[in-house]
Amino acid sequence: MPIYDAPTKDMQFVLHDVLDVSAQDIPGYEDLDREFTDAILGEAGKIAMEVMQPLNATGDEEGCVLENGVVRTPKGFKEAFDQVREGGWTALDCDPEYGGQGLPYVMSTAVGEMFSSANMAFNMYQGLTHGAYNAIHAHGSEQQKATYLPKMVSCEWGGTMNLTEPHCGTDLGLIRTKAEPQEDGSFRISGQKIWISAGEHDMCDNIIHLVLAKIPGGPDGVKGISLFIVPKFLVNEDGSLGERNSLSCGGLEKKMGIHGNATCVMNYDGAVGYLIGEEHKGMRAMFTMMNEARLGVGLQGYAQGVVAYQNALGFAKDRLQGRDATGVKAPEKPADPIIVHPDVRRNLMDQKSFVEGARAFTFWGASLIDRSHKAGDDEAEAMISLLTPVIKGFLTDKGFETTVLAQQTLGGSGFTREWGLEQFVRDCRITMIYEGTNGIQSLDLVGRKLAQNGGKTVMAFFEMVKAFIKENEGNAALKADFLDPLKAASKDLQAAGMYFMQNGMKNPNAALSGSYDFMHLFGHVCLGLMWARMGKAALTALEGGASDTEFYETKLATGRYYMARQLPMTGTHLARIESGAEPVMALEAANF
Amino acid sequence: MPIYDAPTKDMQFVLHDVLDVSAQDIPGYEDLDREFTDAILGEAGKIAMEVMQPLNATGDEEGCVLENGVVRTPKGFKEAFDQVREGGWTALDCDPEYGGQGLPYVMSTAVGEMFSSANMAFNMYQGLTHGAYNAIHAHGSEQQKATYLPKMVSCEWGGTMNLTEPHCGTDLGLIRTKAEPQEDGSFRISGQKIWISAGEHDMCDNIIHLVLAKIPGGPDGVKGISLFIVPKFLVNEDGSLGERNSLSCGGLEKKMGIHGNATCVMNYDGAVGYLIGEEHKGMRAMFTMMNEARLGVGLQGYAQGVVAYQNALGFAKDRLQGRDATGVKAPEKPADPIIVHPDVRRNLMDQKSFVEGARAFTFWGASLIDRSHKAGDDEAEAMISLLTPVIKGFLTDKGFETTVLAQQTLGGSGFTREWGLEQFVRDCRITMIYEGTNGIQSLDLVGRKLAQNGGKTVMAFFEMVKAFIKENEGNAALKADFLDPLKAASKDLQAAGMYFMQNGMKNPNAALSGSYDFMHLFGHVCLGLMWARMGKAALTALEGGASDTEFYETKLATGRYYMARQLPMTGTHLARIESGAEPVMALEAANF
Repeated sequence: MPIYDAPTKDMQFVLHDVLDVSAQDIPGYEDLDREFTDAILGEAGKIAMEVMQPLNATGDEEGCVLENGVVRTPKGFKEAFDQVREGGWTALDCDPEYGGQGLPYVMSTAVGEMFSSANMAFNMYQGLTHGAYNAIHAHGSEQQKATYLPKMVSCEWGGTMNLTEPHCGTDLGLIRTKAEPQEDGSFRISGQKIWISAGEHDMCDNIIHLVLAKIPGGPDGVKGISLFIVPKFLVNEDGSLGERNSLSCGGLEKKMGIHGNATCVMNYDGAVGYLIGEEHKGMRAMFTMMNEARLGVGLQGYAQGVVAYQNALGFAKDRLQGRDATGVKAPEKPADPIIVHPDVRRNLMDQKSFVEGARAFTFWGASLIDRSHKAGDDEAEAMISLLTPVIKGFLTDKGFETTVLAQQTLGGSGFTREWGLEQFVRDCRITMIYEGTNGIQSLDLVGRKLAQNGGKTVMAFFEMVKAFIKENEGNAALKADFLDPLKAASKDLQAAGMYFMQNGMKNPNAALSGSYDFMHLFGHVCLGLMWARMGKAALTALEGGASDTEFYETKLATGRYYMARQLPMTGTHLARIESGAEPVMALEAANF
Repeated sequence: MPIYDAPTKDMQFVLHDVLDVSAQDIPGYEDLDREFTDAILGEAGKIAMEVMQPLNATGDEEGCVLENGVVRTPKGFKEAFDQVREGGWTALDCDPEYGGQGLPYVMSTAVGEMFSSANMAFNMYQGLTHGAYNAIHAHGSEQQKATYLPKMVSCEWGGTMNLTEPHCGTDLGLIRTKAEPQEDGSFRISGQKIWISAGEHDMCDNIIHLVLAKIPGGPDGVKGISLFIVPKFLVNEDGSLGERNSLSCGGLEKKMGIHGNATCVMNYDGAVGYLIGEEHKGMRAMFTMMNEARLGVGLQGYAQGVVAYQNALGFAKDRLQGRDATGVKAPEKPADPIIVHPDVRRNLMDQKSFVEGARAFTFWGASLIDRSHKAGDDEAEAMISLLTPVIKGFLTDKGFETTVLAQQTLGGSGFTREWGLEQFVRDCRITMIYEGTNGIQSLDLVGRKLAQNGGKTVMAFFEMVKAFIKENEGNAALKADFLDPLKAASKDLQAAGMYFMQNGMKNPNAALSGSYDFMHLFGHVCLGLMWARMGKAALTALEGGASDTEFYETKLATGRYYMARQLPMTGTHLARIESGAEPVMALEAANF
């Protein structure tokens, strides 16, 4: 059976040695000293390991069942969900005005990684509720907030996002769901939505659906989309539950993974809905949900990599096959553990160096969100907006790759249900698709984010990398192993940006043909920067006489691996980008 | 529902335009004119599309069931298997002396690709029988051949390979299954084998297990392993079935994919077995099976890519989302088909350029086997021996990647059961693992095959590439797009080989740390060579006034894509290899 071991120590390293959170000039961060964060992570780790992880394989095996319009979640899910809610874990970074604990987002991110590694399908129920909470919190009226948020913070009520319809996913301008205005100011919503995660289930008293729909007579395309609150049960003035709304789950999707989460077809049949914000401005409100949701999906991607790596490592230390080519390591045993073999190590180091880099990258991203939201810093806001498609696209692609590598470490055992690795692969696969496919992320990056603020933000990113290199150039222990490879990778990224500038105006396809490679190139530079910062933090700790020298030495060795063996990918990405549109666009559609 | 369209035309291109089979100096090839191969491929394609493919999704959904020691295969499998047998499709390249049709291996390879694309799990039943047939044919006594082969050629009897035990997969020296010699010259086999594909099922009258076991008193390790024929039912002297042997299926493995194939735990409880070949020489006989089995697995890997690509392409042409950035393409429709978008094309071209390159590589490999077996050419034998780990490792890694790319083309639909893409991903995943994990393939390549014949064979490979470049340098249409990138990639491969030579003697880990990258680097050079040869063939056809100009122009464009966008990977692989053992080996096992 698979295990999960909450990586509290490594999270503490990122929060304190690397990000130095308690010294940051962000309201709320002053409380984040080592002891406080250790206490939270310690408790969260227990919930993850003791309550969530034991339900991961059984939830996958059993899945969700739809009977007479009711979705039954797997055995134990409801009891576990109650325990999580009652422990306050769904309210961590929510507004205290509505019962939240008001902790910084960086802390709910760290906790979220643990929960997601332990049981991704289970944690989607609260994750989607949190997304819906965010949209209502940012765009709802005071009355809407007072009515819905307290129960959503506590997850007594769940929340969903309803975007996709059978004929449209990415291109929301095509949606057909209608919202007919009523005399009392409400609307009647009619249409079908598909792939609605947690659309119907038995763990909450009510489910608050956020639904994109078109008000007749509005503009065509995305400019005519509005966002509505459509509760499963209408809410009376006193806050009690009233009538059942005319909406229903029309079916469950059979899918590759996340079987413990109900993916629903939702039918709205003149259901009562309430407009959020202004008419026809639904996309803006939806993007509030989506931006954070995309960070959350990036996190899911590498979090599956984390737990997959842990299980691969355990196997590699136990499994005896063959002998070390440089001399027997375990003469008392019939064979050496396979971790002695260089190719097994290559595989493990690829996994380890990615997940640790991804963790630092994501926590840094979360701190930028805190800086934006809590300190009102527009530059931080612009930076995280630029990085969001990279976090979503790169971390899910590489997270999936990591689960596949981990599965490979186990050989034949990796293909069996029993060892659990194949579930991590199947569950992780969706992260490359939902909240906008990774192809769409790369278009968002190249087509929109690069040009935001007239390119100032991407220039600020390059300046940040440059400043870090310059600041530390005198540090011989950093220079050759960390700074030089980072400089080379960053140069490749700038060359790619330059190629787009010089060619994209004449022919947009010259940029769009390279968007996916650009997203990966950018991701490698970000992880390179993170590893350079982690390398510096480790050296600083060692120079400061830290007692746990093995931890910091290991960190340095892992970083050196990433710089030596992963960063060279930037050259290939650049070569592909510079090959331009011609190879990609040469064929007529009919000749494929 | 997924479709499959047998690629007869592209296979004909490889067989005739590229390999020019009927002109090759190999016995049996003189019959392979265009009409003859077209007839065979046409019929095989019908069987694949009409008999096998319709059972692919249902076989996955239903799986195999073990009840009272009997394994029930999915509905329709037995009837389809009978149809395949009766059509002679299991006997294609078998020895006419035992009822085979005696066709070249290159033809059974082409047919095998179709069958494997259509239904991988189903075709493993005959694939394993063919492997066991090969081992008995090469190493069995005349009496054994006469007893078993005719029924195995017709697949009235099935065959299996029994290697793995719970505590050992890769390291066969650790096996514990015992073979006690009896007075009548037979042996009694006792032990447990796991992961035995097609170990027990209801489609054949008898199953001939080939089992690795140790005769007490023999040498330790792999040098003490012998190979035995252990039939499910003993065979009487007149060829009729006798007593049930004391062996049984102890359980079915629950696994990620290939659900239609029974993966069995096999218990041998003093079962009667017959030695094949000499005592303690079982590994040699087993390798006869394994080398061809490895080619067959490489074929399975890209064959899943073929069918996945076909389905991704169909979706990309139908699905309407967004508009072409350079101008609307389908004004009469609410949106353009997604194939207009550069990033969707990038994805499709990655798939297409790989599967077509892989097909040429595999057919070329099959023709080397024919040259070795039928013309007794030792150089061809050495060349295919060198290329076997590349075909197995590279084509399954990239084949799997192709199924994942194809799944991504479909967005959310790719994650659902309904569209079938997720099954191709799950089924293909095993190809990277079985018949020796791809890590093991890379060790075989670097640790054994590079040095074979004192390095002469790998030098012959380089010479072949060089000669092709030199011979065609005057061809301006080939030079910049095909020959120059091939030259650069081949140079990277030579540099990597040089690095191993210079460093591997002092420290074997310097070579072993780069083995996986070397296997991929080698694979890219092989596909680059194939594309250069295909490019030349297409140009020749166009110059010769071929009527189907679109086909050949498309071939050229697809090749240019591979050279421009895939071959640059060789630089990254070389950089990783040249980073040496230090980054890979730095950590103590305890510090991972």
